Amino acid sequence: MKLSEIARRTECQITGNPDVEISRVAGIDEAGPGDITFVSNRKYISRIKHTRASAIILGLDMPEASIPTLRTSNPYLAFARALNLFYVPPVPAPGLHPTASISDSAKIGENASIGAFVVVGRECVIGANAALHPHVVLYPRVQLGDNVVLHAHVVIREDCRIGNRVTVQSGAVIGSDGFGFAPAEDGTYHKIAQSGRVLVEDDVAIGANTTIDRAAVGDTIVRRGVKLDNLVQIGHGSQIGENSVLAAQVGVAGSTRIGQNVRAGGQVGFAGHLEVGDGAVVTAQSGTSHDIPAGAVVSGSPAIDNAAWLRSVATFPKLSNMLQRIRDLEKQLARLGAKNLGRFEK
Amino acid sequence: MKLSEIARRTECQITGNPDVEISRVAGIDEAGPGDITFVSNRKYISRIKHTRASAIILGLDMPEASIPTLRTSNPYLAFARALNLFYVPPVPAPGLHPTASISDSAKIGENASIGAFVVVGRECVIGANAALHPHVVLYPRVQLGDNVVLHAHVVIREDCRIGNRVTVQSGAVIGSDGFGFAPAEDGTYHKIAQSGRVLVEDDVAIGANTTIDRAAVGDTIVRRGVKLDNLVQIGHGSQIGENSVLAAQVGVAGSTRIGQNVRAGGQVGFAGHLEVGDGAVVTAQSGTSHDIPAGAVVSGSPAIDNAAWLRSVATFPKLSNMLQRIRDLEKQLARLGAKNLGRFEK
Amino acid sequence: MKLSEIARRTECQITGNPDVEISRVAGIDEAGPGDITFVSNRKYISRIKHTRASAIILGLDMPEASIPTLRTSNPYLAFARALNLFYVPPVPAPGLHPTASISDSAKIGENASIGAFVVVGRECVIGANAALHPHVVLYPRVQLGDNVVLHAHVVIREDCRIGNRVTVQSGAVIGSDGFGFAPAEDGTYHKIAQSGRVLVEDDVAIGANTTIDRAAVGDTIVRRGVKLDNLVQIGHGSQIGENSVLAAQVGVAGSTRIGQNVRAGGQVGFAGHLEVGDGAVVTAQSGTSHDIPAGAVVSGSPAIDNAAWLRSVATFPKLSNMLQRIRDLEKQLARLGAKNLGRFEK
Repeated sequence: MKLSEIARRTECQITGNPDVEISRVAGIDEAGPGDITFVSNRKYISRIKHTRASAIILGLDMPEASIPTLRTSNPYLAFARALNLFYVPPVPAPGLHPTASISDSAKIGENASIGAFVVVGRECVIGANAALHPHVVLYPRVQLGDNVVLHAHVVIREDCRIGNRVTVQSGAVIGSDGFGFAPAEDGTYHKIAQSGRVLVEDDVAIGANTTIDRAAVGDTIVRRGVKLDNLVQIGHGSQIGENSVLAAQVGVAGSTRIGQNVRAGGQVGFAGHLEVGDGAVVTAQSGTSHDIPAGAVVSGSPAIDNAAWLRSVATFPKLSNMLQRIRDLEKQLARLGAKNLGRFEK
Repeated sequence: MKLSEIARRTECQITGNPDVEISRVAGIDEAGPGDITFVSNRKYISRIKHTRASAIILGLDMPEASIPTLRTSNPYLAFARALNLFYVPPVPAPGLHPTASISDSAKIGENASIGAFVVVGRECVIGANAALHPHVVLYPRVQLGDNVVLHAHVVIREDCRIGNRVTVQSGAVIGSDGFGFAPAEDGTYHKIAQSGRVLVEDDVAIGANTTIDRAAVGDTIVRRGVKLDNLVQIGHGSQIGENSVLAAQVGVAGSTRIGQNVRAGGQVGFAGHLEVGDGAVVTAQSGTSHDIPAGAVVSGSPAIDNAAWLRSVATFPKLSNMLQRIRDLEKQLARLGAKNLGRFEK
Repeated sequence: MKLSEIARRTECQITGNPDVEISRVAGIDEAGPGDITFVSNRKYISRIKHTRASAIILGLDMPEASIPTLRTSNPYLAFARALNLFYVPPVPAPGLHPTASISDSAKIGENASIGAFVVVGRECVIGANAALHPHVVLYPRVQLGDNVVLHAHVVIREDCRIGNRVTVQSGAVIGSDGFGFAPAEDGTYHKIAQSGRVLVEDDVAIGANTTIDRAAVGDTIVRRGVKLDNLVQIGHGSQIGENSVLAAQVGVAGSTRIGQNVRAGGQVGFAGHLEVGDGAVVTAQSGTSHDIPAGAVVSGSPAIDNAAWLRSVATFPKLSNMLQRIRDLEKQLARLGAKNLGRFEK
C-alpha cells in the first residue's frame, strides 16, 4: 500500500515521498524496509533516527525524521488505524461447522461463523456477522448482538445479553453464579440461587479468563465501551460505567457501582456496595474500601488521595529511623527537662 | 404462589393479606406488582416505604411496612429460600448427549445429565443426579458424588474425588499439577511429578476459573461446606477447613492448613506452610506470612491485628507530616539545648 | 523396585539394607511400609524418627535415621527423581481421537496423542510425542516442538510458537489479544489490532488458567526454562528471562523485560515498560513501579529494598503511637520553651 493511501486512511499529514510502498506495521526497533513504524512516547524519541523503517508516524510535537513521515495530533490512534489496514483477524470458517451443536430453536444471524464443537443452547439469538470460535458454549436464551467475536472456550450462561461489536477473549465466563450464601446458625451456608442476568452493552472488550457473575436478583451490567483486561473478576450485581477501563486481575466485589471513564490499574480491588464517581483513577494494587468521588485519583490499600499516598510511601522506608529519632528526642528532652529542673527547682 | 404458602415454606410470620399472589423475587428497587422483595441491610430501610412490591421479607427488628410482610430472625436466609421456590436452575437435557465421549469403563449414576462434548475418562464414577454441562472433562478415575453440578468447561484431573452436592462454576480446574520444581545447580529447575490427588468433600462450592492444584505426594483437601469464589488459587498440599469462605482472587500457597469457618476477603494471599486457626478473619488484600491464631482478625500485608492496622492506616497519610514534625522538634531541641548551654555553661 | 536401584537412579549414597522393596514415594506423615519418604526442610527433622516408611532420602547434614537411608547433597532433587520412577503421567490414548477436528494442512509429529474434541487449525505443526488432552484448541499456524504436553482446554492462538518439552496446565490461554486501546477525544477507545505473536521457548511450564497476551507489533517472549504458576498474567510485548519463576496470580503489565533467574512471589505486580535485572527477587504481593537492579531483593507496594521494608513493616503497627509521641514531644517542648522564656526573657 502506498504511503499516501495510509496517510489518507489514518487522517495524517504526509511529508516525504508519498509513493513509498508499505507492507507492514512494526515497532521502532524491529521495523525494516517496507515497514511503517511510530513513536508516541517521548521516551523513545532518540530511536527515531536509528530506525530502519521506510516511514514513520509521529505526533505534531515530535522532531523531524529523515524518512517519510505521517504527522497527527494522535499518533497512537493513527498507528492503531494503520495496523488495521494490514491485519487480518482470525475467523472461524464461515458458516456453521458440522460438529457444532446448535439448538433447533436458536436463531443465527447472517454471515455468522460458528466453529467446531460450539454449543448454542435453546432459544439463543445470535446477531449478524458473529464469529464464535471453537468450543464456545452458549447456555439457553443467550442473546448476542451483531459483529460479536467470542474466542475459543468462552462460556456465556443462560439469559445473558451481549451487545454489538463485543469481543470476548478465550476462557472468559459471563454469567457464572454470584458468590451468595446465607449463613445458617450452625456455621454452614445456604446457597442463594442466582437468578439475575449479566448485561454487556455495545463495544465492550472482555479479557481472557475474566469472570463476570450474575446476581441473585437484578442484573450485573457492563456499560457501553467498557474494556476489561484478563483475569478480572466482576461480582454479582455490580455495574461498570461507560468507557471505564479495568486492567488485569482487578476485582470488583458485589453491588458496587463504578462510574463512567473510571480507570483502575492492575490488581486493584473494589470492595462491595461502593460508589465510584466518574473519571476516578485507582492506581495499581490499590484497594478501595469507601466511596470514591468523581475525578479523584487514589492509591494504596486502603486507598487514599494519590498525592498524600505518594508523600507517605516516600517516607515509609524511613519509618524505623523515625521511631529511633522519636526515642532520641524523648531521651534528650527528658535530660533537658531534668537539667532545667535540677538547676532551677531543686 | 400465595404469600401464605411462601410464609410456610420460608418459616416466616405473616402480617397482611395472606392471599396475595406472588410470581417472582426481586430487589427492593426493581420490584413491582406480583413481586416479593426483602431488606436485610439497615442501610436500605428508607426504601421500604417506596417499594412497588406486593410483599416484603423483613427482620424482626425492622419498621413496619405498608404491604403484606413476612417476618423472620434471618431475613437473608428466608430470601434465599423464597428465591429457590421460583428459580429453575439450568440443567443439560437429561441423559447422555450423543456427542459426549464416555469411556466404557465409566460408571454413571441414575438420572445423570451429561451434556454435549463432555469427556468422561476411564474408570470414572459419577453419582446420581449429576449435571455435567457441555465441555466438562473428567480425566481417568475421577469420582463424583451425588447431585454434583459441573458447569461448562470444568476440568477435573485424574484420581480426584468430589463429594456430594458440590457445585463447580465454569472454567475451574481441579487437580492441575502443583507448582513444584527442584532447583538444579545450573539455575534450571527439575519438574517434580505431582502424583497426589485433590479431595473435595460434600457441599463445597467452587467459583469460575478457580484452580486447585494436586501435590507431589499426599492430597490437597477442601473440606465439607467450603465456599471458594472465582479465580481463587489453592496450592498443592494445602487444606481448607470446614465451612471456610475465600472470596475472589484469594491465593493459598502450598502446604498451608486453613482451619474451620475462616473467612478471607478478596485478593488475600496466604503464604505456604502456615497454620490458620479456626474462625480467623483475614480482610481483603491482606497477606499472611505467619501462622494466624484461631479467632484472630488480621489485616495488611504482612497481616497484623486488625485493630492495630486500622489505627496505623488512619495515621499513614500523615507520615511525611510526621517526619517534618520530627525534624522541627530536632531543630527546636537543638536550639533550646544550645541556648541552655549558651546561658549556663559557656 | 529395590532401594539399591533407586539409589543408583537418584545418584544417592545408600546406608542400610539395599534390598528393601519400595513401591511408592510418600510424605513423611503419610508414608508406610513399602514407601520411601524424604525430609529436605529442617523444620521437619523431628518427624524422621516417627515415620513408618521403609526408607528415607536425607541431606548430608541431616541426623541419622533408623531405617535404610539415601544420602545426597540435594534431597529435594533426589525426591523428584524418585517420584518419576513410580509416577505415570496421564496421557490421552495414543493416536488421533476420532472426534478431533484436525486441519488437512496440519502436520502432526510421530507418536502424537491427540485427545477428544481437540481442534488443530490450518497449517499447524505439532512435534513428536505431543500429548494434546481433550478440548485443546490450536488456532491456525501454531507450531509446537517435541514432547509438548497441553492439558484439557488449553487455547493457543494463531501464529504462536511453543518450544520443546513445554507443559501447559488446563485452561491456560496463550496469545490472547493484548490490552491495547487508543483513547479517542470523546472518551471512547479504539481497539488496536494485536498482530504479534507469543513465543514460548523450550522447557517452560505454564500454570492453569494463566494468560499470555500477544502484542500489537512484535513478540511476547517467555524464555527457556521459565516456570509460571496458575492464574498468572503476562502482558503484551513483555519478556520473561531464562529460568525465571513467577508464583500464582502474578501480573506482568505490557512491555516489561524481566531478566534471568528472577523470582516473584504470589500476587506480585510488575508495572509496564520496566526492566527487572537478572536474579532479582520480588517477595509476595509486592508491586514494582520502577526498574529493579540485578540481584536486588525488593518488597512492598511500591517495592523497596527488602531490608528497609522489613524494618518499616516491623514499625508500622506503632504508627499511631508514634504520632501520639510526637504530639507529646511538641507539648513538652512548648512548655519547656515557654518556661525557659518565662524565666529568662520576661
